[in-house]
Amino acid sequence: MLDYPALQALAEIIRRGSFEAAAHALAITPSAISQRIRNLEDRSGAVLIDRGPPVQGTEAGLRLAAHLDQVRLLESTLAGSYRPSQPPVIRIAMNADSLATWAMTPLTAAPGLIDLVIDDQDHALDWLRNGRVVAALTSDSRPVTGCDSIPLGRMRYRATATPEFAARHFPDGADAESLSRAPVLNFNSKDSLQDRWIREMTGRRIAQPLQRIPSSQAFAEATRLGLGWGMNPEAMIAEDLATGRLIDLAPDRPLDVPLYWQIARISAAAIEPLTQAMKNAARISLLS
Amino acid sequence: MLDYPALQALAEIIRRGSFEAAAHALAITPSAISQRIRNLEDRSGAVLIDRGPPVQGTEAGLRLAAHLDQVRLLESTLAGSYRPSQPPVIRIAMNADSLATWAMTPLTAAPGLIDLVIDDQDHALDWLRNGRVVAALTSDSRPVTGCDSIPLGRMRYRATATPEFAARHFPDGADAESLSRAPVLNFNSKDSLQDRWIREMTGRRIAQPLQRIPSSQAFAEATRLGLGWGMNPEAMIAEDLATGRLIDLAPDRPLDVPLYWQIARISAAAIEPLTQAMKNAARISLLS
Repeated sequence: MLDYPALQALAEIIRRGSFEAAAHALAITPSAISQRIRNLEDRSGAVLIDRGPPVQGTEAGLRLAAHLDQVRLLESTLAGSYRPSQPPVIRIAMNADSLATWAMTPLTAAPGLIDLVIDDQDHALDWLRNGRVVAALTSDSRPVTGCDSIPLGRMRYRATATPEFAARHFPDGADAESLSRAPVLNFNSKDSLQDRWIREMTGRRIAQPLQRIPSSQAFAEATRLGLGWGMNPEAMIAEDLATGRLIDLAPDRPLDVPLYWQIARISAAAIEPLTQAMKNAARISLLS
Repeated sequence: MLDYPALQALAEIIRRGSFEAAAHALAITPSAISQRIRNLEDRSGAVLIDRGPPVQGTEAGLRLAAHLDQVRLLESTLAGSYRPSQPPVIRIAMNADSLATWAMTPLTAAPGLIDLVIDDQDHALDWLRNGRVVAALTSDSRPVTGCDSIPLGRMRYRATATPEFAARHFPDGADAESLSRAPVLNFNSKDSLQDRWIREMTGRRIAQPLQRIPSSQAFAEATRLGLGWGMNPEAMIAEDLATGRLIDLAPDRPLDVPLYWQIARISAAAIEPLTQAMKNAARISLLS
């Protein structure tokens, strides 16, 4: 059996970012907490904490801390007096656009303390696979061993720009020639929405001058400020389209991105209220 | 002299996330781009690209790509026909709360394409030091060699919660006892605002049940949804306080965080319009 008090020390250090804060949270001395970690490292034969700065978990340390969270989550489903007084930590990965538009509210249904990770669209499935998160809201439909994947619906994106930007850069409409010169907004290097839309529009692939804005709200704001054109979630810029602050470069060419709620099967029962809330919110906010 | 065409290939691969997209953007063949990178790696004696997935720059590769951006930025200050047709890329680090409240608009004054990095409050100065960004908007005042630091003013935070949350968790006010039990919101493990406020309030340090929400807007939204209490930028929740949706746990105890615009001196002249815009926006939005 693992040394659970030592795992608790490990998890607190990772969550609070220092040995000292963890010792304080657990009401033990700093030397006692260091000792617990050293013992755990000796027994597991791996460094579990990168002493920094900043202090953070190693791959092996994060895995063990996540295991503790899962055990606590399972404990929370026990009936009666076995029920722990401390609420479990529920670590979830979510794509930024969902968080910015519809998926914050259902999080309140989580039966525990939320630890949210913003999915940069590349790691969510790895995190699920190695147990670092118990569920992920992602556009990635690939099946993960030991996980259930629930399709939630489609999020609609629209190619948008200010009327001034469009008049200057797309006087004859958005075509291959004008798109190759107009500054485009990009969330991060994994964001392929603009490229996908261009391919659907023109049948071609076009290299464009990129500007990177890695925040959903700032991305929409940058569009409104005329820094570039970009694919914005419809829910985020519906009012701008209605008032004419932004225009849709091709109203008959939205881009729909399917979203999935992927859950580690071992935690599915424990987070069932959250899953229900996600499904209900998706039913209202996403296209079926 | 460095092989600049090869550096261009390197920078495009890092920016676009694949050899193939970079080859397309530079209108050369994939094998030509691979060859350039191999030559560059042979000459520099270091791996510059982690072939992934995901494809990304190594520390050495990112350093070289940032050097290219700086050279381009310097080129952009040359007069007349030397002026390059391609706008330079201006990489900037910024703290999430500034981006969410007042600092997106001044970015439109940047004389080039924006590449924004959201500062997790720990790396901005390292990035400046090793040239990965040309400027950083940060609460970190530590001087960086080769950089100028301009104080911009103070951003005011308020300890906020819904009236229901306060009634339930702080019936007799926020004191050491109640704060140790009430769920608190936390941006990430480097976010010490809540702890600092508690220390100023109670003179003590108190371990609390943490919930992590690593997005400024979602953090404010989570406060409105009653998930926890947290330190929100006043500019972000002023309306909620006015309408009574949120209450200030201690109206006479705001927390002020000074902000600095730190600029690599070699790039200062090239980004002067951006610096002016930052100073002007700060004058309007921050406390002096």
